[in-house]
Amino acid sequence: MDSFKILEIKESVFKGNDERAAALRSELKRDKVLLVNLMSSPGSGKTTTLVRTIEALKGELRVGILEADIDSEVDARKVAGTGARVIQLHTGGMCHLDAEMTRQGLAGLGIEGLDLVVLENIGNLICTADFDTGAAKNVMILSVPEGDDKPLKYPLMFSIVDLVLVNKMDAMSLFDFDMEAFRERVRRLNTKAEIIPISAKTGEGMGAWAEWLRAEVGNWKRA
Amino acid sequence: MDSFKILEIKESVFKGNDERAAALRSELKRDKVLLVNLMSSPGSGKTTTLVRTIEALKGELRVGILEADIDSEVDARKVAGTGARVIQLHTGGMCHLDAEMTRQGLAGLGIEGLDLVVLENIGNLICTADFDTGAAKNVMILSVPEGDDKPLKYPLMFSIVDLVLVNKMDAMSLFDFDMEAFRERVRRLNTKAEIIPISAKTGEGMGAWAEWLRAEVGNWKRA
Repeated sequence: MDSFKILEIKESVFKGNDERAAALRSELKRDKVLLVNLMSSPGSGKTTTLVRTIEALKGELRVGILEADIDSEVDARKVAGTGARVIQLHTGGMCHLDAEMTRQGLAGLGIEGLDLVVLENIGNLICTADFDTGAAKNVMILSVPEGDDKPLKYPLMFSIVDLVLVNKMDAMSLFDFDMEAFRERVRRLNTKAEIIPISAKTGEGMGAWAEWLRAEVGNWKRA
Repeated sequence: MDSFKILEIKESVFKGNDERAAALRSELKRDKVLLVNLMSSPGSGKTTTLVRTIEALKGELRVGILEADIDSEVDARKVAGTGARVIQLHTGGMCHLDAEMTRQGLAGLGIEGLDLVVLENIGNLICTADFDTGAAKNVMILSVPEGDDKPLKYPLMFSIVDLVLVNKMDAMSLFDFDMEAFRERVRRLNTKAEIIPISAKTGEGMGAWAEWLRAEVGNWKRA
């Protein structure tokens, strides 16, 4: 039977989130665990992408997953099916996780023996971008049906990410998504962010994304 | 040339949002203006739906639009193309509008001579559901690509709405969206909410949605 815990995480009462995030990042560096903060709108395909990612990295990297949601355990259940270590975090209405809440989640999950932990953050493009979770890398998924104008409307999110996965590429023919216009809009906010088009459904681009993760885990453990 | 104002709305410093929302609703009742609060995830098709809705009601109802966004004026520009009265509201990072912020927006728009005002709220399913804006009716759009499990993950939103428009029905063949399962999940949270499947692209269901608005404007002016 798939098993996972559900943890009700408490709102952080501490000030100084940036300092706490930096401290958590240092500890994770010492422990050689890469924490990736994965953000997106509701329904962009975060969980399906994660399931495929775990499958792609099986036998290579030991992966743990923090599933953060307001309510429900549907995502943790899906991820537990892969055999990966997973915990469901409930934020009780809060739309973000900060470093202290992430620390609670990592303690609940247990990071011993892991190479990579992915935090599937709450589904929204606003509050999540406001808080440093302590992650080494910030990744967002934007799905093709959401449209190529999203960098204009959610500039903070696009300015803080290291990588944008453009998901549901298989649906491209049905939607007016101008990839060049999208790249240009991201570029104006963020000259460093990489963009990888993927389809968690067909597998397109999943190799490039897995390769990105392998390289980042390697860098994190080495440097 | 299409023209619209941009208003930087200020965060409300007042307590007692519920009382302020009730007071605003009473004034709008007196003025016979129906205010509809339209909520959704980013990229579910709110603006395209609004443009088509304005076209469907042309010559019948005088419509005004409050476009709320963190940043940018892309939505107001699209809506201004219809000739409807529109104002762009910038919340400066805030992920919701409360009653006082909505009042600022209505004052900026000017409601004289209007039958219906639609507030296109900030794109997210969390913070927006937490605040009564003073609207007579709460409507949300969920698009097919987002998936049928969203009521499980965003229960507050689905519990407060009077109507759910399920948009992008034209993309149904490409996504695993179980309409019966979705209806049942909404029903468990909210026995009153109506559900209308639409496609702002093909026009499917837009007649039923326009009819719903006509009826609500009629009720509001009469009762």
